[in-house]
Amino acid sequence: MSVQAIAWTPTGAVRIVDQRALPEAQIERDLESAEAVADAIRTLQVRGAPLIGIAGAMGLVVGLRDLRAAPRERFLERCAELARLLGGTRPTGADLRWALARMERVARDTPGDGGALWERLHQEATGILEDQRAMCRRIGEHGLALLPDGANLLTHCNAGALATGGIGTALAPVYLAHEAGRRVHVFVDETRPVLQGARLTAWELTHAGIPCTVIADSVAGSLMRRAQVDLVIVGADRVAANGDFANKIGTYPLAVLALHHGVPFYCAAPSSTIDVSLADGEGIPIEQRSPDEVKTVAGRAVAPAEAAALNPAFDVTPARYVTAFVTDRGVVQPPFAAA
Amino acid sequence: MSVQAIAWTPTGAVRIVDQRALPEAQIERDLESAEAVADAIRTLQVRGAPLIGIAGAMGLVVGLRDLRAAPRERFLERCAELARLLGGTRPTGADLRWALARMERVARDTPGDGGALWERLHQEATGILEDQRAMCRRIGEHGLALLPDGANLLTHCNAGALATGGIGTALAPVYLAHEAGRRVHVFVDETRPVLQGARLTAWELTHAGIPCTVIADSVAGSLMRRAQVDLVIVGADRVAANGDFANKIGTYPLAVLALHHGVPFYCAAPSSTIDVSLADGEGIPIEQRSPDEVKTVAGRAVAPAEAAALNPAFDVTPARYVTAFVTDRGVVQPPFAAA
Repeated sequence: MSVQAIAWTPTGAVRIVDQRALPEAQIERDLESAEAVADAIRTLQVRGAPLIGIAGAMGLVVGLRDLRAAPRERFLERCAELARLLGGTRPTGADLRWALARMERVARDTPGDGGALWERLHQEATGILEDQRAMCRRIGEHGLALLPDGANLLTHCNAGALATGGIGTALAPVYLAHEAGRRVHVFVDETRPVLQGARLTAWELTHAGIPCTVIADSVAGSLMRRAQVDLVIVGADRVAANGDFANKIGTYPLAVLALHHGVPFYCAAPSSTIDVSLADGEGIPIEQRSPDEVKTVAGRAVAPAEAAALNPAFDVTPARYVTAFVTDRGVVQPPFAAA
Repeated sequence: MSVQAIAWTPTGAVRIVDQRALPEAQIERDLESAEAVADAIRTLQVRGAPLIGIAGAMGLVVGLRDLRAAPRERFLERCAELARLLGGTRPTGADLRWALARMERVARDTPGDGGALWERLHQEATGILEDQRAMCRRIGEHGLALLPDGANLLTHCNAGALATGGIGTALAPVYLAHEAGRRVHVFVDETRPVLQGARLTAWELTHAGIPCTVIADSVAGSLMRRAQVDLVIVGADRVAANGDFANKIGTYPLAVLALHHGVPFYCAAPSSTIDVSLADGEGIPIEQRSPDEVKTVAGRAVAPAEAAALNPAFDVTPARYVTAFVTDRGVVQPPFAAA
């Protein structure tokens, strides 16, 4: 059983698992405003491009709860305001922009005043969550053929249940292979600086009873050299029309290593992560995060205070390094076209 | 000015900088027995293959202080015992074995009883320290031509003053370029799991006023892709006769990335690190350290307690990835022969 990373509370708040506290503590947090959701996204309480998309849509609904009695224009104004707030939290992922655009379009296309619009948006955000859960399952079903019994795969960061509304993207085939009784073993890149691999991927795999081994990011190369990795599967934060894609920093060197050693390299992503408005990866904005994420770990300084640090959260992997994309539509090759 | 990582105290103990405490605290520790030196090596208070070699030789001398009145045979027996103790601390580096063999040979070749032998060993250990200081300087002089004004180099782990008795191996050319007024900038791989890059390399470069930028290990690939790295220089723990070499885990993937992007890749090492008894890198034993180094950082769990972790301390880079070796004898190509 995989974990449920996001849900509505009975009173209509957004309930999340605070991912900063894992693996030491499993803390659920109820977010009662769009501002709280924006803050949760910015501070990585909620992360993973697909999950951020859902959180953005649900955050919009939460933030508009008090405008159910408002006239149409006032409601739409506030909706646009909150969409800007939520959309401004993190620049790289595609799903957040996709989800907010879908929500705003639905609001505009729905007749009536605040009450009717809010009901429709609530329904739409729930639909985004449910659609994504279904997309994850389809990614898993399409990817299942890539994981024969006994497969050793390597993944980076967290593209699992904690990154989506369902069973994950890169990890979806792993969950289904495990369900089907196949023996699979996952090498988990710890994924510095925020350690989403060690903290989140190892946690959710361990909870599901799937064997995994945490490694420092720099171990992958020698494992591949000794033929201990059968395939690499990673998620994506944004995929351009030509198949170039942004994902957690460290994905690109893995792709180079996989190519160099003849190891198949797959990128798993739902349709909502594919941004056909971008011709290639050059146009994907790369979020630069605080140097403190590199220079301190668990509150302890691991570099001199005076030293500079560079902290790009993502890198771009050109499409030519990717063996195939595993999407909800199949195991496919770019280019990608609008749905 | 670079830091002095090891020295005799006035009373003949071994004074070290406890490298576990850096960069938060600069703690000097006086080691009064061979056992204390062995423990310091095993727990990474003292690390870096060349420095471990010196520490081993000096540790032998400290451990034999009480045998200055012993007859020859008793002294030589104890010497062999302590050499085994010290030599058993860490398996991968060449310098420790080289230094201990040199010390034992000198003891056997010296006539007389405990007093005479101990004096000779004290002189020899001091000679090893002084030789290495000179070798570091020569590595720096030979490597200087690789660092034009404005060079951006990338290094991994710590192969600086804190890894040697002198100005380092990989960092020796950097110190001399800086002394010569050239502008050099160093990208410092933080080097998980023990973070010798962030904690030690950034600390000693910052102290010397040399500009550096700490990065997570997985950032190097995208820097190379964007042509921001002019060259890579790393140290070595053991170099085989054919030029295959072991160095801190993460060196091999850097070498693959450098080759893939056409970035020159240099290995800097003193003669004492070259083990001509090994034909190639296959024979180098790779130390496996505790999974806890990966699963906890600064005492905080960063992976679930139940998750497995793999923690090889080193990897082997085949000679074909190396542009050239920078040794005390010049910028050279393998194969290496006995001195």
